Amino acid sequence: MSSNWGNLIRISIFGESHGAGVGVVIDGLPAGEPIDLEELQIHMSRRAPGHDRTATPRKESDLPEILSGTLEGRTTGAPLCALIRNTNTRSGDYQNLSILPRPGHSDYTAYVKYKGYNDIRGGGHFSGRLTSPLVFAGSVCRQILRRRGIEIGAHIYSIADICDDPFDPVQVDAGLLSQLSRTRFSLVNPKAEEPMRAAVEQARMSLDSVGGIVECAAVGVPAGLGSPMFGGVENVFSSLLFGIPAVKGVEFGEGFGAAKMRGSQHNDPYRMVNGAVKAVTNHAGGILGGITSGMPILVRAAVKPTSSISQRQDTVDLTTKENAVLEVHGRHDPCIVPRAVPVVESAVALALINLMAEGNQL
Amino acid sequence: MSSNWGNLIRISIFGESHGAGVGVVIDGLPAGEPIDLEELQIHMSRRAPGHDRTATPRKESDLPEILSGTLEGRTTGAPLCALIRNTNTRSGDYQNLSILPRPGHSDYTAYVKYKGYNDIRGGGHFSGRLTSPLVFAGSVCRQILRRRGIEIGAHIYSIADICDDPFDPVQVDAGLLSQLSRTRFSLVNPKAEEPMRAAVEQARMSLDSVGGIVECAAVGVPAGLGSPMFGGVENVFSSLLFGIPAVKGVEFGEGFGAAKMRGSQHNDPYRMVNGAVKAVTNHAGGILGGITSGMPILVRAAVKPTSSISQRQDTVDLTTKENAVLEVHGRHDPCIVPRAVPVVESAVALALINLMAEGNQL
Amino acid sequence: MSSNWGNLIRISIFGESHGAGVGVVIDGLPAGEPIDLEELQIHMSRRAPGHDRTATPRKESDLPEILSGTLEGRTTGAPLCALIRNTNTRSGDYQNLSILPRPGHSDYTAYVKYKGYNDIRGGGHFSGRLTSPLVFAGSVCRQILRRRGIEIGAHIYSIADICDDPFDPVQVDAGLLSQLSRTRFSLVNPKAEEPMRAAVEQARMSLDSVGGIVECAAVGVPAGLGSPMFGGVENVFSSLLFGIPAVKGVEFGEGFGAAKMRGSQHNDPYRMVNGAVKAVTNHAGGILGGITSGMPILVRAAVKPTSSISQRQDTVDLTTKENAVLEVHGRHDPCIVPRAVPVVESAVALALINLMAEGNQL
Amino acid sequence: MSSNWGNLIRISIFGESHGAGVGVVIDGLPAGEPIDLEELQIHMSRRAPGHDRTATPRKESDLPEILSGTLEGRTTGAPLCALIRNTNTRSGDYQNLSILPRPGHSDYTAYVKYKGYNDIRGGGHFSGRLTSPLVFAGSVCRQILRRRGIEIGAHIYSIADICDDPFDPVQVDAGLLSQLSRTRFSLVNPKAEEPMRAAVEQARMSLDSVGGIVECAAVGVPAGLGSPMFGGVENVFSSLLFGIPAVKGVEFGEGFGAAKMRGSQHNDPYRMVNGAVKAVTNHAGGILGGITSGMPILVRAAVKPTSSISQRQDTVDLTTKENAVLEVHGRHDPCIVPRAVPVVESAVALALINLMAEGNQL
Repeated sequence: MSSNWGNLIRISIFGESHGAGVGVVIDGLPAGEPIDLEELQIHMSRRAPGHDRTATPRKESDLPEILSGTLEGRTTGAPLCALIRNTNTRSGDYQNLSILPRPGHSDYTAYVKYKGYNDIRGGGHFSGRLTSPLVFAGSVCRQILRRRGIEIGAHIYSIADICDDPFDPVQVDAGLLSQLSRTRFSLVNPKAEEPMRAAVEQARMSLDSVGGIVECAAVGVPAGLGSPMFGGVENVFSSLLFGIPAVKGVEFGEGFGAAKMRGSQHNDPYRMVNGAVKAVTNHAGGILGGITSGMPILVRAAVKPTSSISQRQDTVDLTTKENAVLEVHGRHDPCIVPRAVPVVESAVALALINLMAEGNQL
Repeated sequence: MSSNWGNLIRISIFGESHGAGVGVVIDGLPAGEPIDLEELQIHMSRRAPGHDRTATPRKESDLPEILSGTLEGRTTGAPLCALIRNTNTRSGDYQNLSILPRPGHSDYTAYVKYKGYNDIRGGGHFSGRLTSPLVFAGSVCRQILRRRGIEIGAHIYSIADICDDPFDPVQVDAGLLSQLSRTRFSLVNPKAEEPMRAAVEQARMSLDSVGGIVECAAVGVPAGLGSPMFGGVENVFSSLLFGIPAVKGVEFGEGFGAAKMRGSQHNDPYRMVNGAVKAVTNHAGGILGGITSGMPILVRAAVKPTSSISQRQDTVDLTTKENAVLEVHGRHDPCIVPRAVPVVESAVALALINLMAEGNQL
Repeated sequence: MSSNWGNLIRISIFGESHGAGVGVVIDGLPAGEPIDLEELQIHMSRRAPGHDRTATPRKESDLPEILSGTLEGRTTGAPLCALIRNTNTRSGDYQNLSILPRPGHSDYTAYVKYKGYNDIRGGGHFSGRLTSPLVFAGSVCRQILRRRGIEIGAHIYSIADICDDPFDPVQVDAGLLSQLSRTRFSLVNPKAEEPMRAAVEQARMSLDSVGGIVECAAVGVPAGLGSPMFGGVENVFSSLLFGIPAVKGVEFGEGFGAAKMRGSQHNDPYRMVNGAVKAVTNHAGGILGGITSGMPILVRAAVKPTSSISQRQDTVDLTTKENAVLEVHGRHDPCIVPRAVPVVESAVALALINLMAEGNQL
Repeated sequence: MSSNWGNLIRISIFGESHGAGVGVVIDGLPAGEPIDLEELQIHMSRRAPGHDRTATPRKESDLPEILSGTLEGRTTGAPLCALIRNTNTRSGDYQNLSILPRPGHSDYTAYVKYKGYNDIRGGGHFSGRLTSPLVFAGSVCRQILRRRGIEIGAHIYSIADICDDPFDPVQVDAGLLSQLSRTRFSLVNPKAEEPMRAAVEQARMSLDSVGGIVECAAVGVPAGLGSPMFGGVENVFSSLLFGIPAVKGVEFGEGFGAAKMRGSQHNDPYRMVNGAVKAVTNHAGGILGGITSGMPILVRAAVKPTSSISQRQDTVDLTTKENAVLEVHGRHDPCIVPRAVPVVESAVALALINLMAEGNQL
């Protein structure tokens, strides 16, 4: 593993924040699938920086060049490679990081693993910029999934201690998800926007950052996908979601809340509805025994506050082996949660397309 | 995937709750490692049912027969297969479940996936009994890891709304972990035992069940294990932990709590301590950029309340396609959290031994 | 890897020649497939020793105990584990091999890899006995494949310099393959039996052994299975076939013979036959660009002469680091080619069921 | 699988013959390894077309652009992506192939698998051009291997029925291999060049093509790499080698020749030589029980005659479902064997670097 993922539909992600660019090879896509580049660009630019005060002012147009795998707007079945060139890099900002590792960042752990040979500029391969090819790949897959009746959408569940309304675990529908997945600051209840923005602005003014939670739903997923034990839906989802930088927790359905519930509350009773088996509630988040139940899939990812802050921080000098103080002057996101929304949707799309392929449903 | 897991050290788990037995093949173990069967049995019996009022009265001695892969008490490097025969099965208890799926259980989703051919008796391959070979495999691995300086231990972080003291993220040490990992009702603060037992008993009396959280730590893990993106420590851990039945959430370090923190709080500053780089705090749970930092690894798994309860529940009859009512009379655990403790430890051991192998540290 | 193999349908093989037994876990089988145990036993006993003068007199009944994964004679979709106990082991025969590695055997290389901790008795996990669970797994799979119209069969293509008639690459049919796959000394032309047996007997009398070639065909395989590059049919087949001890070469269609041909001879022209595209010849062995063409698949595996011979051989003493002479007195096969026939068929079945699963054809 | 390969060091190959370009992502390389671009270019241009009368006159400079994974000439440990733009494509030549599949080519099988959506121009992703990124990846790896004492080199073992001298299985040394791997028409005995060229020229004049065999050796490989059964050296090598278009057979050591040998001839006796265990002969090709013995590794790959020939050939029209006649007018290689030499070397390098990584030797 590492920057590869997938069994039947595989991605291999490459690139660095301040190198030539970032990109992805997607191997195993079904042939003949049209790719709507305009819609794809909507997802790419939801993730791209420079569009919102909550995000870094670094601007990247994030226009992917498709190098292979398509012909006349359709997939050919051969590996699809997309390259997103970096255009706006200011490496000077990061020059002293190779000696003074930033707290909360991968600088120190990467230094140990790669014996100091890793590209530290802008976080190198550890940068949030690597989520750009992830969104590319996920966006291709969600177009394919939509043609099989699956819609995916996410929202900002919380920023700091401000919460949006949660998804209705039973009623959440394709219309809402489709709408959310075209929005830059995705919320179920628009009233949450102002206080959330205020919380971010407050952090920014203090040269600080805030975290939050992204909640994602997928509807139209057929029952019977996944496997017991290690091939379960939760395993597959989490093996991708924890690949998004800053994600430190993943939960399904009631998740950690289930720990305080009783079985009689948490169990979802079944009823026949129009000849089909339906659960009346959906505490399970659409997954039982690792296998989809046909109910909406619900997953939440906890995003830690951006590690890059402009306050002075204690660190060490890896050359002199002495204590040191760090002040970082790059362009940072005071809150990456809004930009993480399409990334989570993309990870969910990649997970689901693999589960669909394994279940002979592509 | 499915019931296989692992890259360099792989497990393949088999068996059913009411079949001949359960077992595991572990492939890729280093050769020449002594296996302490007595210690192994301690872990096995911590997980085994019938030893505690919080658990099902079904008794299973859980004595593994090692069929291959060892010679004179040491691993040979060949696949190690262990078989644990089932001795105490009462299939009659489950006879009508193939028609009336239990809410909260895999009965319905397995029925769809396997078109009704799955072994429904006692949950079949979805049963918690499959954690027995998982504990076997994990216990073999933790003995190997201990010889490389790694100690793993977990405790009941919470049951219902009763909490144990959390691990000290910086100070947690091998002595405490070793002690916990030999205890049946593992707690940092023994005062939590009585109220926890009371909460479980209360649920049992109401023919109900309760959930909880298991917290696990690993100390002595060298810095530099893991990879960015999908080969990260969190990805590897969660891909295993979600294979434990009933786990619905996994978090590292501050986890979901990080969502409410500021970067200045969450970032762990570095200091030189006796010539070594140490983090002063450990909100990251020992993992940055998917790679270990050398600080203790901290992970929590949310365990939903046992699905099998004896209350009447609404369900459907899959044969007649009509609504139905279910009453289950098997032997169930009102709370599986205490028995889940060694299972979480074992999953962590399996994850770590793979990361150690990938890092050339075995 | 190692003793695991497979992507969607995976096997994990365990056991040693002189340990408790050998076995296999098969994970990912489709549910609801009946298993004909009688037919399965036919394949098992074609491979088993003690039935023929060309083979070792060691008798093993090779009766598998199915420990999991079936219910009422059908697969459940859960991992199927089969255990074959060893009954007739004479470890004394091998006692001095741990010091004096047998030429042509894995003794020395295993000693280096496992630092002397491997089980050397009877070759341990390297023994030809490990093909017994491979035949079990392949035999389960070929029953499933037959229900999808695929028939697999092999014959002794050659022993020493005596050749059977080769398969007709275009006309080979299911009837012939089915008949061959129930025969102990499988030949297209029965006239080859006598001279082949004479060649083996001659070797046996000289305390020597002979090699040979097994040719296997599969008919009814749909066009379109496989992938370009590394997921090709040849890659998948060979990654299994080289797992059979003693196989040192694998070729498809004309194979090494193609090296001497011209393109105009080797290319297989197409014609429409009853509305379907057919190749007129089949030099390609049913595979083009790594993908099946719908023509019979043809593969040959070269089997080296049995390494275990009773002649005196030069070797070294790994303890004293001095030259030594070895005389082996175990029970050996002067020629394993006849017993390798069902093993090759089984490997082909495992390869094909994975390709079928990847192609959504199970 | 498909166009991905590898366990610890993984490649993901993309591109088409007549698209934007071809390329590869290499994931898992050790950090800090210098890459000698000049030497790399030597290997690239040995494979590139347009340099020799035996090859297609299509000229491609094959200059890779490294998009990621290096810094100041050294690997960073992050995925290394190289892109080789196509510069000389004449798609008109192939226009009618989408209807009339070329015998011996993947046109028909790809058409079935990809339902006609595959890029047929120049063979698309099935083109021999895809070996260019394979050589790139292999050339990076062999530089790393050389620093661990391993040298790899191959030669034209035969073209049509003209043979070069074979490698001496015991004496083949790094000097010879290094020299061969810098030569365009690699031969042990230069006297074979003239008759080989004559055979190719003869085929070219008849609008035909010829096949041949490539033999590759690796020296300096430590004993103890590989695994029994499916993780064996032969399995790993062949799973890559059959990914080279036109390879139809792979054999190790004596290979198919072993089928006619006796055990007493084939077994390689051991002797102590300067305190080290050495085999006196090397019929095993350096591999016993799937594990390296420390002797030179010897492998041969059979290359079928180029499928693209300019003679009229029988085929079918996939649109009208009628018989048809095909005349191809592209630029083709009358013999690809000389260009296949560096490709085989590269596949061997990729296989070995994975085995070295698994054996903790990188």
